[in-house]
Amino acid sequence: MITLYDIPGKLPGQAWSPNTLKSRLALNFKGLPFHTEWVEYPEIEGLYKTLDLAPTNVQPDGVTPYYTLPIIVDASIPGKDPVVVSDSWNIAVYLDQAYPDAPLLFPKGTKALQAAFQETWMDAFFWPATVFLRPRTPEIALNPRSAEHFRRTRSHQLGRPLAEIEPKGEARVAYLKEWEEKLGKVARVYEGVTDERYLTGDEAVYADLLAGAYVRYFRVIGGKEEWEIVSGWHGGLLKRIGEASEKYAMLP
Amino acid sequence: MITLYDIPGKLPGQAWSPNTLKSRLALNFKGLPFHTEWVEYPEIEGLYKTLDLAPTNVQPDGVTPYYTLPIIVDASIPGKDPVVVSDSWNIAVYLDQAYPDAPLLFPKGTKALQAAFQETWMDAFFWPATVFLRPRTPEIALNPRSAEHFRRTRSHQLGRPLAEIEPKGEARVAYLKEWEEKLGKVARVYEGVTDERYLTGDEAVYADLLAGAYVRYFRVIGGKEEWEIVSGWHGGLLKRIGEASEKYAMLP
Repeated sequence: MITLYDIPGKLPGQAWSPNTLKSRLALNFKGLPFHTEWVEYPEIEGLYKTLDLAPTNVQPDGVTPYYTLPIIVDASIPGKDPVVVSDSWNIAVYLDQAYPDAPLLFPKGTKALQAAFQETWMDAFFWPATVFLRPRTPEIALNPRSAEHFRRTRSHQLGRPLAEIEPKGEARVAYLKEWEEKLGKVARVYEGVTDERYLTGDEAVYADLLAGAYVRYFRVIGGKEEWEIVSGWHGGLLKRIGEASEKYAMLP
Repeated sequence: MITLYDIPGKLPGQAWSPNTLKSRLALNFKGLPFHTEWVEYPEIEGLYKTLDLAPTNVQPDGVTPYYTLPIIVDASIPGKDPVVVSDSWNIAVYLDQAYPDAPLLFPKGTKALQAAFQETWMDAFFWPATVFLRPRTPEIALNPRSAEHFRRTRSHQLGRPLAEIEPKGEARVAYLKEWEEKLGKVARVYEGVTDERYLTGDEAVYADLLAGAYVRYFRVIGGKEEWEIVSGWHGGLLKRIGEASEKYAMLP
């Protein structure tokens, strides 16, 4: 059995984190059975130590280790020691290597170009979205212990309270206008996708799932009013992207 | 025969423009015979009118037409009227449609992801490079009539003389540091390319040629000192990208 370590929340269908959702979608896409272990933010570091796993990332200061989910532990291969993998991209790469007969997240020759999609996507969609997502995530999604941890660590990183990062009034109007234009980069990418349902054809690849996971996060947490605005841009681009991978979400 | 309309210059191997070079590389990659017609900047608008071709783009003001090269005229298909196509991306798409038996610039399912590569590439390499390229292009590459036209139109777009856009002193150091970090996006893309020579495997695709064309432009025009610095970043990333497609450059 494969175990996916995810961050719990208080929403119905509690999976909310886009990073762990990427791995959830990937596991479902490949049709691999797994179960979820829920870990509140303050316990993630301890989980790394229990699993004897080096931190995947460092914080923006360049030295402090950054303990993040998802992690998977794959104890499903008979006669082999359990394999522990962290970071959603690494997990996707591992799943294709370990299960090459299940549908591929990275069909031959697409890994570098999918990485390019990820760069464009983060720039044009996710980073601009964070000013709405960060203040709302602890309010809407998280249980009290994780909420406190999220607020404290994120405002420390950003150097100010989360409540202050969302632009208001005229600044908000200007911000949204600039974001809409920036999202044009993603719209230009999807100009290459005409009759197909997904980025490379009639089957999803990892890039489709990745984009879908972030769209779902924003739809649920980003704010009803903001979703109405943003999902209307570029001919309903984000709605289309979200819907295409929704069938792989299969939330617990 | 196919005609490629290109902008002449005063350098040996006079093809210098990255936009027309993309089409030159694409034609050579597909092994299609073509000849070049050289058109100085002030004559491009007239060429559009002669060819009865609508402008491909508008200028940043959103209304003024923007007359750009490359254009190709394909009069090589017996019994068919010549086909006129402008814009390097459109030309690449056309060449695959018209010549599907020659090697494909967009192998099935890669067009959207290659468009994502282009977005990442422009952001992380080309736009930052323009502060060095714009002042030097008329000095190093262009004949007097085109040089005058380039200086006048570009400084009008930017609202200041081209000589003023290149950062100097401490601002230059900071600019280069930020650019190096930005180019990390492209480096992350190429982490997916290990043993292969090109982005998707052992054969080039359009994204490889596109990147190669811009690297060549910067290597020739960007400044010797700047090329030394920039080509050393991320383990010689740009050298590798430039060399991979150099064999398709085949300059006139």
